[in-house]
Parts: sequence; C-alpha cells; structure tokens
Amino acid sequence: MELNKKVEDFKAYLDRINTFNSAMSILSFDSSTIAPAGGIALRAKRMGFLQLEIFKMTTGEEIKGYLEALAPHLDELDKPTQAMYKKAKKKYDELTKIPPEKVQEYATLTEEAESVWAQARKDNDFAAFAPYLSRLIAFNKEFLILRADEMPEGGKPYDILLDDFEAGMTIEKYDDFFEKLKAVVVPLIKQIAASKKEIQTDFAKYHVDIPAQRKISDRLAEQIGFDISRGYIGEAAHPFCGGPDKTDVRITTRYDENDFLSSVYSILHECGHAIYEQNIADEIADTTLGTGTSMGIHESQSRFYENVIGRSLAYWQYLTPSLKEILPQEFANITPLMFFEAANKSQPSLIRVEADELTYGLHIVIRYEIEKMIFAGEVEVNDLPALWNKKYAEYLGITPPTDADGVLQDIHWSIGMFGYFPTYALGSAYAAQLLYYMNKEMDVDALIAKGEFATITKWLEEKIHKHGSVYTPNELMELNFGEQLNGEYYAKYLKDKFTALYELLC
Amino acid sequence: MELNKKVEDFKAYLDRINTFNSAMSILSFDSSTIAPAGGIALRAKRMGFLQLEIFKMTTGEEIKGYLEALAPHLDELDKPTQAMYKKAKKKYDELTKIPPEKVQEYATLTEEAESVWAQARKDNDFAAFAPYLSRLIAFNKEFLILRADEMPEGGKPYDILLDDFEAGMTIEKYDDFFEKLKAVVVPLIKQIAASKKEIQTDFAKYHVDIPAQRKISDRLAEQIGFDISRGYIGEAAHPFCGGPDKTDVRITTRYDENDFLSSVYSILHECGHAIYEQNIADEIADTTLGTGTSMGIHESQSRFYENVIGRSLAYWQYLTPSLKEILPQEFANITPLMFFEAANKSQPSLIRVEADELTYGLHIVIRYEIEKMIFAGEVEVNDLPALWNKKYAEYLGITPPTDADGVLQDIHWSIGMFGYFPTYALGSAYAAQLLYYMNKEMDVDALIAKGEFATITKWLEEKIHKHGSVYTPNELMELNFGEQLNGEYYAKYLKDKFTALYELLC
Repeated sequence: MELNKKVEDFKAYLDRINTFNSAMSILSFDSSTIAPAGGIALRAKRMGFLQLEIFKMTTGEEIKGYLEALAPHLDELDKPTQAMYKKAKKKYDELTKIPPEKVQEYATLTEEAESVWAQARKDNDFAAFAPYLSRLIAFNKEFLILRADEMPEGGKPYDILLDDFEAGMTIEKYDDFFEKLKAVVVPLIKQIAASKKEIQTDFAKYHVDIPAQRKISDRLAEQIGFDISRGYIGEAAHPFCGGPDKTDVRITTRYDENDFLSSVYSILHECGHAIYEQNIADEIADTTLGTGTSMGIHESQSRFYENVIGRSLAYWQYLTPSLKEILPQEFANITPLMFFEAANKSQPSLIRVEADELTYGLHIVIRYEIEKMIFAGEVEVNDLPALWNKKYAEYLGITPPTDADGVLQDIHWSIGMFGYFPTYALGSAYAAQLLYYMNKEMDVDALIAKGEFATITKWLEEKIHKHGSVYTPNELMELNFGEQLNGEYYAKYLKDKFTALYELLC
Repeated sequence: MELNKKVEDFKAYLDRINTFNSAMSILSFDSSTIAPAGGIALRAKRMGFLQLEIFKMTTGEEIKGYLEALAPHLDELDKPTQAMYKKAKKKYDELTKIPPEKVQEYATLTEEAESVWAQARKDNDFAAFAPYLSRLIAFNKEFLILRADEMPEGGKPYDILLDDFEAGMTIEKYDDFFEKLKAVVVPLIKQIAASKKEIQTDFAKYHVDIPAQRKISDRLAEQIGFDISRGYIGEAAHPFCGGPDKTDVRITTRYDENDFLSSVYSILHECGHAIYEQNIADEIADTTLGTGTSMGIHESQSRFYENVIGRSLAYWQYLTPSLKEILPQEFANITPLMFFEAANKSQPSLIRVEADELTYGLHIVIRYEIEKMIFAGEVEVNDLPALWNKKYAEYLGITPPTDADGVLQDIHWSIGMFGYFPTYALGSAYAAQLLYYMNKEMDVDALIAKGEFATITKWLEEKIHKHGSVYTPNELMELNFGEQLNGEYYAKYLKDKFTALYELLC
C-alpha cells in the first residue's frame, strides 16, 4: 500500500518530466523546420531555460528521494515500472556526477563549437576547428573520470560513452562485431571493383520536379504504413524523425531535382523511425517508456524500411508500375531490375551519408576506431586528418582530397557526440538479424513484391515496436530470439546480396 | 538598494513566466498549423499542463509576495517597471478571485463547447449549442460576481469584461462610440443602396492559382515591411498572428483560387499585426511588455495596413503595375481605379469576417448590444437567434436565412470570449484617428502611391509600436495626441471615403 503510493507519485513525477520533454520536442522540430533565423538568440534562451527545468527535475531532490525509496523494492515492481526506474536512475547518475557549472560550460562550448565546425567545413580549415575539438575531448575525458564507477569490469572509459548511446554495448562487443564486418566487406568491395558488371544509373539523375517528388514521397509514406493522421512530413536539409509521442510523430525529408532516388530512400528511412514510434503500445505511450529503446534498435527500423524493404528487387517490382503512372515519360523504359541495380550500385565514396549499403559500415568502422584511439590517448587532435585519410585508403581504397570531405564532414563531434557513430552500424546489423528470423515465419520478398507491408510491420510491431523502452536492446533480442546482437547475420546478408548483384563467384 | 534587489527578483520572476508563455506561443502556432489531428488528446494534455504551470506562477505565493512588497513603492519605479507591475497585478487579481476548481471546470466546458459549436454551426442547429452557451454565460456571471470590486463606479458587470479585453473601456464609452458610428453608417448604407453607381467586381473572382497568390502575398508582405528574417508565413483556415517575441513573429494567411483579393487583404491585415510586434523597442522586447498593449490598438495596426493603406486608391496605383507583371493575362484591362472600387464595394452582408470596411462596424455594434443585454439579464439564450436577426434587419437591412449564417457564425462565445467583439471596431476607429494625425505631418496618400511604406511605419513605430505594453491604450493616445479614443474621426473617415466612392451628395 505504502509502496503503491510511492510508485504512483514517482510515475506522476516522471509524467511531469515527460510532458516537458514532449513540449521540447515540438520546439525543437519547429526550430529545425520553420523558425526564422532572426529568432535564434531568444530561441536559444527559451530552449536553454526549459532544458534547465528538465535538468533540475531529472537531478533534483525529489527524484533522488523516489530513487532511494524505491531502490530496495525493485524486485517487487512490474517490468515497465522497473524500466522507468532504471531509465530515470541512469539519467540521474549520468547528470549528477558532473558539477552543474561544468555542464553549463560544456553546453556553451558545444554551441560555439558547432558553428565553428560549420564554418571550418565550409572553409576546409581543420586547424580552425581543432582547438574546439581538443576542448570537447578534454571535457569528455574529465567527465569520464567522474563517471569511472560506470566502467564495466576490465573496461575502458570509452565503454561508458558506448553504453550511453546503446545500453549494453562495449568495446569488446563492438570490436568483435566490426572485425566480422571488415573481414567480409573489405575483400567484397575489392571483388566488386574488379568485376565487369555494368550498372546503369543515368536515369536516376533525370530531372524530376519537386512537386512530383513530394507527391511520390507522400504516397510511399502512406503505402509503407506511416499514419499521417498521427504525423507530419516536413522538409529539412538533414532529414530526421521527431515529435512528442506516438500520436504526433514528425519526419522531415529532402528533395533534389536531380536525384530522385535520394528522396525515395530519405522518406523510407524516416518512415522506419516513425512507424516504430507510432506502434508503441498505448499503455506506455504517454510515459518515459513511450519511445524507441535505443539508437541501434531505432536505426534497425529505419534501415529495415530503407534497405531491407526499399533496396530489394521485390520492392522495385512492386513500385515501378505506379512510378511510371506518375512519371510516364521519365521512366518509360526502366525496368524493376534496373531500378534495383541502380539503387544498390556499390562504390567506395568519401561521404558517410551518401554511402551505399555495402560500404556504409566501413565509414562507421573508421569513426569507431578513431574514437577508440582518441579516448585511449593514442592519437592527437592534430593528427586526426592524416589518420582519417589513412583508414579511408586502407578500407575503402580512396583518399579524401580535402578535410571538408574527410574528418570535417560530420557534425557529431562538434556537438560533443562521441560514442554515437557505432550505433549507425548496429541498425543495419539488427535489421539483417530481424530479417533472418522474419524469413523463418514468412516469405518476406513475396510480401514486399505484393506491397503487403502491413504483415511485415505487424511482425516488427510484436517483436520490437510495441515494447517501446521497456526492454534494453540486449533484453529485447534475448526475449525474441534467445540471442543478442550477432554480426554474422549482417555480414552474410551483405555477402549474399552483393555477390548476387555483381554476379561474383562465391 | 533593498528595493532594487526586490525589483530585480521580480523581473527575473516575470521573465520566467514570459519564457513559459513564449514556449506556449510556439506550441499554439504549431497546433494551429501543422500538428496532426490524431495528436489532439496528448496535445491538449501537454498544453493544459504548461498552462497550469503558468497559472501557478501567475497566481502563487511568490508573485503575491512581490506584488505586496512593491505596492508601497510604485511611485519610485520607472514607467516600464510600473507597467510590468500593473500588468502582473491585474492578471493576479483576475485569476485569484476565481477558485481553481472553477477555472478547471470552465476550461473543460469551453473545450467541449467549442466542438459542440463547430458541429452545431455545421448542422445549423442552435438548440444543440444553446445549453452550452447558457452554461458559459452562467459561469461568466458567477465570475463577475467574484470580481465585483473591479466594477467602475456606477458601472455594470459587463464593464469588467470590456476592461479585460481593452483596458479603460466601459459601457459608457462604447455606447457613445457606437452611437456616433451608427448615426453615420446606418443612413450611409441606405444612400449607397439607393445610388446608381455600378462597381465591377467580376475580375476579382478570376481564377488565380495558389502558387501565384503565394508569390504575390510573400511580395506584398515584404514590400509593406514584414521582416521575414524575424518571421514566418504559414497557412491556416483562420489567419492569425502569433509567435513568441519580436524576433519570431508568425502570421498565417489563406488562399482562395477564386477570390484573389481575399488573400491580398488577409496578408496585409496580418502584416499590420506583425509589424507592430516586430517594431517593439529592444529594451522591452524580451519582457512581459514586449507585445502590443491591447486588442484595440493591435487591431488598429492591422486595420491601418489592411484598410487605410491597402484599400486606398493610392495603394492600387502603386500595386497594379507589378500585379500585371505577375498576372499579365488575368488583369490586362484592369485599372487601379477598378481595383480600388472593387476592393471597397459596400454591400450589407451576413458574415462578419466577410464584411466590407463600411458595414463591418455594424456587425460589431450588433454583437456588442447583444452581449450587453446578456449580461444585463435582458435576453434569454433561446431568444438570441431572433434578437440577432432583428438587429441585422434593423441596421443592415438583411435577415440571416439560417442561424449558421447568423448567431452561430462566430467561434468567440463558444470559447467563453465575451467582451472581445467590441475591440474589433476599436481597431478601425483608432486607425482613422491615427491617419488624421499622420496626415498633419505628411501626405499619406502620396507616400502610399510611391510605395514609401517605411515612412509610414516609422511614424507608427514612434507613436505606437516601440512602446509595446508600457502604456495603456488611453495613456498611449493621450501621450501622443492629447486625447483618448474619439469616434468622430472614424465616422468622418467612412463618410468621406464612401461618399466620394459612391459619388453621393453630402
């Protein structure tokens, strides 16, 4: 009885935090889409103010009281309540170990660093960004010392960052995962480079005007299962998925008149994120558990819809006829196989966000290995451009001509996100693992070819979506498949797909 | 010293409230423009929650403490601080006199009543809305009893509502104002009805496609002085002006393919509101004074840009050539005079928001007189449709065929807004008064014809905009012109304009 009351109060308190966060998610969507440039200063003040309110609620005496009071009774709580507790506790620990003035200082630094980085990339001037990057790294190292108790046994400081972005992941697990990936992909791209296979892509660069692309995008989103009555499609230079809860999931996409396929894959990718959010069980939708459980699992959904579905031959068999209706002239002579091949043409390239499905993972490997070295003190900031270029040459066989196309290309480090990149590779790996198990129960390609995405989504909803953040990634995979992340599925998926596509000898 | 500290703390506290309000203004803009229908329940919860936070801050012990501590020192404060104090005190008094559970009950009622009203209007079913309207009125009467001490000497409860929406206005002042208006306008529209003047308007209904209208609208906004780098133009069925502060002022407009002029006047009207907000002095921009001082003064700015500028012959002399560039075929043979006449054609009509400049005021008179009777207990809810129709017949010479076109047409009562309507007429009246004084210093028509709106705006900025909410409407008018609102200017403006337009004998 006493405990019930405590739990109820705890949940009401989390609801308060959750409501503030949901308001922030709308302000932040607004800020990334329609808010005017001139409002930036007061907008930053406003968002900083609300962020501080959330910070206070997440770290104050009241939450501390709940966490202490409930700690001895964890076993008596139901699973969702346990998950809420653990999530709140993790956040509390993360934020209270660092003195508030340091947090403030760091926030100011990241804000400044981001704009310096943007300019440095424009100017191809790594030296301008380097001092900021050094300070960002120094801050993080300092934070990691304060959080040393979170380090896994026998682990390293960088393990803590990895766990921040994907609970349960460690250097040990990533090393194993990426080694398996490299072992397959590095030789595979060499084989492809040597292959005689010609893939035609010129038609993918035909001019398709933006209103037509918008129309197609909206239709693809609807077909694939994005519920527009509980969502919104906006436009932004960097597509993303946001919004406060399952009843209001917002995505943005982008259109390039001369790159029709990029808008197709942009919308499918964001729809994957959005469908995950929209399918969270109602019981937990309006709680702190009402969102995807991790970056990796979230990315597995976006990659599933973008790659597993969208880059399959079956999908193009399904899509091509209706595309030809909208754009009869542009695509009169293009077959599903031609679309499929063009959408999967693999070629080592410099920019991560433009990489194809096969080479993408290597872009992540490179960033992971560099971050690992940074936090092990094995590389100086000034040596990063050379290290970056060396790894691109080694794994992808190409060398960035400028730092703008190399070490400066991503925003992440400038806003202090270290340990985040590896989750991008997890997405595709989880997606391949999900596909393996899904194929045991249904003929996935046959469903795709018929446009029966609802059956696929239903399966994902049962295994993944509905659980929101109730389970950690490891728990979720164990629960469904009796095993955790296993990079073998991903390596095999890539090998099978690209061996067939390029008609290579196995 | 002691006082300075108190004032500083008071201002910091107001800043907190202001920041919450500015966040709410973005959520609310979002809600009226892009937020999905399916998100309504959680959105209502979220906005209700934040509204409650604001309510608590506006009425709690902390603000009470400041108000009590500063009360004896009011004379020692500078004018802006005094204004902040008075604004906060007024809000505090307004909100603390009504028990919180009543406020909650009332909020629930208005939410429900609004959707019942929307359906009732659709179904032309006043009986469905009547019980809600009765409860809304009963609530307000109850509230007015609790606020009886705010009644002016010799005044009535309705005076309190009038003062809520336009500080300083009373039944006595409105009676005088509206009688002067009726005395001029009622006979004038009879003269016009009898006149032989033919005004051609068919070209105003030519099909103009929406992308072209959007382009024109954006250009008009820019020409007239709306700073898009500190603003945004969205679309909504009911155009409005919102946004958090002078650096982020958002307007919406609407487009009708077959009513080109409606989008011209919609954008000019909202630009008037927006330019007011954008020109508030920097010193007070990010305070509770950083917004227009009253509904009436705000509406005076929108009406100035929409009517005084936009419906003048000079404006059409300025605009017609560039319009013909964008739409050479549609408007090949249309002269500035033809546009001017079409934009000012006066004809009694049923719907307030579609009324012309001359007859608009009578729509307001009718609502004012009815509200006055409601709060004097001189009419029953069930008799409102008949009373409404009788007044339309008397003043405008027409009778609504349905209640949907009559008493059910406006949203205001359904959301509990009583005392608001009269401010709509104040806007045009203040605008005419401003024009009178402006013309003493410059040739307004000549400036308009040359497109030199910046000179006009500069004058308005000095007299009105920059002051934000530092002065009440009465103070502001006294300060600038040595007199308060005077309906004579408006009556004369209308008489002169429409006598000339219709070539009537004076």
